[in-house]
Amino acid sequence: MSGGWVVGVDIGGTNLVVGLVPVAGGDPLALRSRATEPERGADAAVADIERMAEDAIKEVLDAHGGSRDDIVGVGIGCPGPLDLDAGVVIATPNLGWTDYPIRDRIAHGLDLPATLDNDANCATYGEWWQGAGRGVSTLVGVTLGTGIGGGVILDGRVVRGVSGSAGEIGHTTIDLNGRRCACGNYGCLEAYASGPNIAARAREGVEAGYESVLSELVENDLERITAVTVYEALVLGDEYAHEVMLETAKILGAGVANIVNTLNPEVIVIVGGVTRAGDHLFGPLRAEVRRRAFKSAVEACQIVPGELPETAGVIGAAGIFVSEVLDGRSEREVGA
Amino acid sequence: MSGGWVVGVDIGGTNLVVGLVPVAGGDPLALRSRATEPERGADAAVADIERMAEDAIKEVLDAHGGSRDDIVGVGIGCPGPLDLDAGVVIATPNLGWTDYPIRDRIAHGLDLPATLDNDANCATYGEWWQGAGRGVSTLVGVTLGTGIGGGVILDGRVVRGVSGSAGEIGHTTIDLNGRRCACGNYGCLEAYASGPNIAARAREGVEAGYESVLSELVENDLERITAVTVYEALVLGDEYAHEVMLETAKILGAGVANIVNTLNPEVIVIVGGVTRAGDHLFGPLRAEVRRRAFKSAVEACQIVPGELPETAGVIGAAGIFVSEVLDGRSEREVGA
Repeated sequence: MSGGWVVGVDIGGTNLVVGLVPVAGGDPLALRSRATEPERGADAAVADIERMAEDAIKEVLDAHGGSRDDIVGVGIGCPGPLDLDAGVVIATPNLGWTDYPIRDRIAHGLDLPATLDNDANCATYGEWWQGAGRGVSTLVGVTLGTGIGGGVILDGRVVRGVSGSAGEIGHTTIDLNGRRCACGNYGCLEAYASGPNIAARAREGVEAGYESVLSELVENDLERITAVTVYEALVLGDEYAHEVMLETAKILGAGVANIVNTLNPEVIVIVGGVTRAGDHLFGPLRAEVRRRAFKSAVEACQIVPGELPETAGVIGAAGIFVSEVLDGRSEREVGA
Repeated sequence: MSGGWVVGVDIGGTNLVVGLVPVAGGDPLALRSRATEPERGADAAVADIERMAEDAIKEVLDAHGGSRDDIVGVGIGCPGPLDLDAGVVIATPNLGWTDYPIRDRIAHGLDLPATLDNDANCATYGEWWQGAGRGVSTLVGVTLGTGIGGGVILDGRVVRGVSGSAGEIGHTTIDLNGRRCACGNYGCLEAYASGPNIAARAREGVEAGYESVLSELVENDLERITAVTVYEALVLGDEYAHEVMLETAKILGAGVANIVNTLNPEVIVIVGGVTRAGDHLFGPLRAEVRRRAFKSAVEACQIVPGELPETAGVIGAAGIFVSEVLDGRSEREVGA
């Protein structure tokens, strides 16, 4: 029971995940997940999170003994943009919530101190604390999903920047006059390599006449092509899906090379569904980074998939609470 | 005499600059400069640096009183790549020196402890310590010259990365299939916006038939066009030179926007000769950053020219010695 547990909360556009993470580190216990259905509003999601957390707390205390006092706090991860100091969701396109004081609502509901950080920072911190980057000094995380996010960890601390928005690696320009991105910019990494944009590029090719099993997989309804369909076609040996993945890897490679040359990290951990493509992605990605970045920096850097595909967010959210509050490494306010 | 002085040494491809910087901060005293003439070899340059330093020490002690003990060390800045831990110049294209233990040679010659860091880190640290970025938590420096370098300062410390090569902002890709860069990569910031590449782009335009006063300025010997010539044409109101500077600003803006979105710094300080173009450069550069980066991060970030055009390198090299050795903020070895 050394040190108790922290409730880890991972709020995603698709799922809410809650679990109890040992303060000393380790796999989350009593993990629970349900659909977010953000259109129900933030209050409904917070009520679900509270119920899931109370259930998980009961389950863990019943199994391991101990009292409510052994639950020391809550770490929350949520898509941004967030006001980290105030603990507020400013405006989250994936959730549709605005100006919602999520940290303090959850803190009050559970009567526990709480921290809030963005989802990509939490996933990155989880991989640094308990996953692919354990014990390294400098780590950068890249989260590939509906969007592309990122987190920067230097000397074991999350770099948040002066207004809390550091790590927006998905919105770095890698092609000056390239594809329009949802953020309004042109040529962002995300405009090519997020799930929906991998699908969009694949669709464009099929529409332009490339032979591919993709059309069959979606029964010629090309709008149904997703990054998962591209992966399925790849597994079936489809030449065109292979080409799309190769292009994705090269584009990601340019973005990752920029991180390598800017921050010279020890590990870059890439998380998200697309990493299921395994060596189809990581082989050409690493080759592109070698081609683009400085040799000494490339040789010093491991580029690896995450080790905690389901739980990095929950573990990292709890880990940030431990680091910020229990280890007192930050002066940021904590809701309660 | 509070705290004494540190010898600051700025080794450039063109000039060697040496001065005495007060440990408490302030303008360098007894500043000396001479041509590097690197082809004479590193030993000759080190001998010059020793002589310049001894002269400067004598001048300062004669004027201010005090003894040799008031000179507490040497901070050296040098173009890379360097082995920072060993204090060695690995291979510097601009100097032609390889595997030269510059830190310990200078330390032994002057019988003082010494630190070595790369020139861009020193210039950035100088601007943070005594120049345009005084007192801010997070600052990124971009040095525009024969090449483009950079330095990253978080919480008052230089971020060096795991193998000492962080901050290579000039070699981040902003145009996936763009111009070939001297580093071997394609589409690096440096391939467009370094002095020689600004000149090259201007030359290409004139060769392609653009009307410009540039041809006259170099008496039709287009090989003689430099970034300075472009600046002179700009001052004369030349439309085409204005266009070249605008394009430079837009390209730099993409690179600076990438820094803003990745690190969300409080200040980005841009140093080097090109900044003489003033608002011709900074106006469109800031506009491009606004167009490309996240609003909250842009609003939190000042993009400014350096305040120490002649002395940032000397001040920063000395400041890094103060920070690393006197304040004991690093475990890196110190030559002596």
